[in-house]
Amino acid sequence: MRWEEQDTRNCSIGRTVEIIGRPWTFLLLREMFRGLRRFDQFHAHLEVSPTMLTRRLRELEEHRLVERIEYHRDGQRRRQEYQLTQRGADLWPIVTALHEWGDAHVADPEGPATVYRHQGCGASVRLHLNCELGHRLSSLAEVDVLPGPGARRPPARTSGTGRSRC
Amino acid sequence: MRWEEQDTRNCSIGRTVEIIGRPWTFLLLREMFRGLRRFDQFHAHLEVSPTMLTRRLRELEEHRLVERIEYHRDGQRRRQEYQLTQRGADLWPIVTALHEWGDAHVADPEGPATVYRHQGCGASVRLHLNCELGHRLSSLAEVDVLPGPGARRPPARTSGTGRSRC
Repeated sequence: MRWEEQDTRNCSIGRTVEIIGRPWTFLLLREMFRGLRRFDQFHAHLEVSPTMLTRRLRELEEHRLVERIEYHRDGQRRRQEYQLTQRGADLWPIVTALHEWGDAHVADPEGPATVYRHQGCGASVRLHLNCELGHRLSSLAEVDVLPGPGARRPPARTSGTGRSRC
Repeated sequence: MRWEEQDTRNCSIGRTVEIIGRPWTFLLLREMFRGLRRFDQFHAHLEVSPTMLTRRLRELEEHRLVERIEYHRDGQRRRQEYQLTQRGADLWPIVTALHEWGDAHVADPEGPATVYRHQGCGASVRLHLNCELGHRLSSLAEVDVLPGPGARRPPARTSGTGRSRC
């Protein structure tokens, strides 16, 4: 089945960008991957209105990417903080890939604002495609992209378009 | 410098999502990575209005991610097609990372609609973090995320906010 003939409604990319494919969501995830947890921290570090921040955090909660945890330290009142669920933490390659492209193509002349180093050895790290047999690939040009078990043709146009909705 | 104290206006993630961080842009890039090139192909495969499609393609051109090529085959009129520039082709890890998360978390019960195989050996491929010394990392937990050469504090509030704008 050629790609043009394939129904895109169950495409994993399409479904993922429906959940997280907006600028504010990526920025909020970045803050969480950098260790921030509290509403006041997000609000102080991002130029976002409290209303928008509340809405974006709620969306992340609804998609089970983030959960609210109540805590209180000695002598202080109860407070809430946000933490990534496993499902949310699994988004790290997306955030890392955005970061790498930006470093390569839109960083300031003096260099990137953030660098990633392997703990222990200190060498810089990058995303690579590796196959299950251990080969390291240099790009998608070495990859066959094939219809998977969920591939299907769109339904006939009379019963729907069968195309993407984003 | 702690992350909370760092100016985010030159963050590579923020700059990248300003350019491509919208659902339609990701879907259009997906179509191009899957080999589609012509306006009519995009229009037929995606549920997008011609106006919106024209606008998104123009944005990709303005950001030098895509270029228009004129061609004509024997006996046919001149036509235009779109192809990824090197800068655009370098986005493949982002599209791949979106795909992998979607396959793991939101695919249909029968499995993903698309699979990636290493040409030649046929083994499935995945993104991994590798360091320059050749170690394979399993997650960001093994990474030190540090201020880079472009890191700076935000300017004083009186001369601007120093925070993100997306």
